[in-house]
Amino acid sequence: MKNRQVVLKQRPNGIPAPQHFEAVTADIELTPAEGQIAVKNLYLSIDPAMRGWVSLEENYLPPVQIGEVMRSVTVGEVVASAHPNYRTGDIVYGLFGWQKYAVTEVDPLVRKVDPELAPISTALGALGPNGLTALLVLEQIGKVQPGQTVLISTAAGGVGSIAGQIAKLKGARCIGLTGSDEKRALCTEEFGYDIAINYKTSADLAAEIREAAPEGIHFFFDNTSGTIADAVYPSMAQGGRVAQVGTAAIASWDELPMGPRRDRFILTKRLTIQGFVMLDYFALYPDALKSLAGWYQRGELNYRESITEGLENAPLALTQLYEGTNTGKQLVKI
Amino acid sequence: MKNRQVVLKQRPNGIPAPQHFEAVTADIELTPAEGQIAVKNLYLSIDPAMRGWVSLEENYLPPVQIGEVMRSVTVGEVVASAHPNYRTGDIVYGLFGWQKYAVTEVDPLVRKVDPELAPISTALGALGPNGLTALLVLEQIGKVQPGQTVLISTAAGGVGSIAGQIAKLKGARCIGLTGSDEKRALCTEEFGYDIAINYKTSADLAAEIREAAPEGIHFFFDNTSGTIADAVYPSMAQGGRVAQVGTAAIASWDELPMGPRRDRFILTKRLTIQGFVMLDYFALYPDALKSLAGWYQRGELNYRESITEGLENAPLALTQLYEGTNTGKQLVKI
Repeated sequence: MKNRQVVLKQRPNGIPAPQHFEAVTADIELTPAEGQIAVKNLYLSIDPAMRGWVSLEENYLPPVQIGEVMRSVTVGEVVASAHPNYRTGDIVYGLFGWQKYAVTEVDPLVRKVDPELAPISTALGALGPNGLTALLVLEQIGKVQPGQTVLISTAAGGVGSIAGQIAKLKGARCIGLTGSDEKRALCTEEFGYDIAINYKTSADLAAEIREAAPEGIHFFFDNTSGTIADAVYPSMAQGGRVAQVGTAAIASWDELPMGPRRDRFILTKRLTIQGFVMLDYFALYPDALKSLAGWYQRGELNYRESITEGLENAPLALTQLYEGTNTGKQLVKI
Repeated sequence: MKNRQVVLKQRPNGIPAPQHFEAVTADIELTPAEGQIAVKNLYLSIDPAMRGWVSLEENYLPPVQIGEVMRSVTVGEVVASAHPNYRTGDIVYGLFGWQKYAVTEVDPLVRKVDPELAPISTALGALGPNGLTALLVLEQIGKVQPGQTVLISTAAGGVGSIAGQIAKLKGARCIGLTGSDEKRALCTEEFGYDIAINYKTSADLAAEIREAAPEGIHFFFDNTSGTIADAVYPSMAQGGRVAQVGTAAIASWDELPMGPRRDRFILTKRLTIQGFVMLDYFALYPDALKSLAGWYQRGELNYRESITEGLENAPLALTQLYEGTNTGKQLVKI
């Protein structure tokens, strides 16, 4: 039978756009070999990390090759199984790519999704990588305590919108940086932030942050790097912590971009800065998912999805993600 | 009676030099009030941190004021005591400043020096702040394990020369960066380094470091910041650690100097970077001093002092420290 796929056509220099991808049709047999499963994708996750995946720069996963199906976590339905733990009809989460069907090994990333718990699309967001990232960063790197001040960049994004709410549930004071006044309102009205700052229209972002955090920032959840982060470092509290979770504000690392050195802040304020990659924390997923599901079911997590229809529109959805025009978790429904 | 002091005359813009200080004579009575001691200084410690102490930039201690005696740790002899724990003749360590005599409270920094253990001047170096810094940074931030690769900038300096030896005693492979071929030889012949690189004459420092650490650097003991550190970050190992102990390569932080951003290394390599200020680790000093004294007495710590004679020459000794012309711990003998 025929499979529909979106493959990498050319390597972008910076932000990926529709012309860097191509929709193709390929043959596929939905007959998994022993240990494999065949999956029909239902939702694709569109993620900031994708820019890094299609770049040749050093990263935590090898780059997607030209002509290869675009890497993507997805949620799908098992349509044939030769694996003892999976049956036809199971809903699964995994790195199944931008394609209608996948026949694949069951690698450690694959997990079953319980459709009773919440809508299955949430496995790509609040009850998936975004929620896990938000929770694990706050607990494992932030070690956030009640009464502390937390600042989150990309506050209204897929991760930030959940992180703000979890930080509040943990008793922290929460400041968000975001890129529009509409998102600013969402941050304070839906996502639990005490204060939200529009970094695009701020006349003096560093001063506005300083004013919002008179006792300093105890934990900086940094999804952006770049000039946005530069405005945060002077307001870090003594002994403050920083998680480097993303670098969304930097278009390319091919040549290292320049910025103000932070070493004096790190030294005199005794900061701890740590890189976070979710793949390192497998062992903590089950407990973290339990916490997230509990909050979700009790209605304590506001969660938005921005759903684009059609596999072929995945590249466009990715471009819109970097343009920051959508709010909440960006998905493609097949 | 008369006291001789060296005070801050004007605030340097960058490296302090003799013209920024002034030797003055002041009256003093060696009659401590209750709880105080009177100390006759014997050795002054000349330290890289002093540039920060005379600067108005934010730091971990308030700036030395114009006309004030230059802050300095020293070793001296108690010449009069009104404190129950101290007697005339005791050798003491404390922040007694660039002056012949001090009458002072016994703050938590003051401690007795055991002249049986080692020459008392070592309390300002190998068995004092330098040794404590070297050991505590390696243990508390580096968490250095046998077989790991450690890179130390200012490898032949007061801290670096001890840190290299302790890292070796802990079973690490040790790479040193230093500023002359003479120091390079000292590093490998006396201070335990497996490899030492002259960063001033290296044609491509980053490449030389990469070659010296094919499996990556597990711990970077950074005393310099600046372009020297820039050459190290690309060679950090996955999960590597960095201690920001000093920023000797940066002349001024009045305006933040620019440098290549490190956030992508921090993220993809999952680095942990942490600022270190010795004052934070008081509680660990006694055990650390025991370890240091043990190594010293067993002849396992090569330790050099560079001794300048005369209180008035303290500013000159400080300038020479930043010029990097001396090797080992810089002291002034009064």
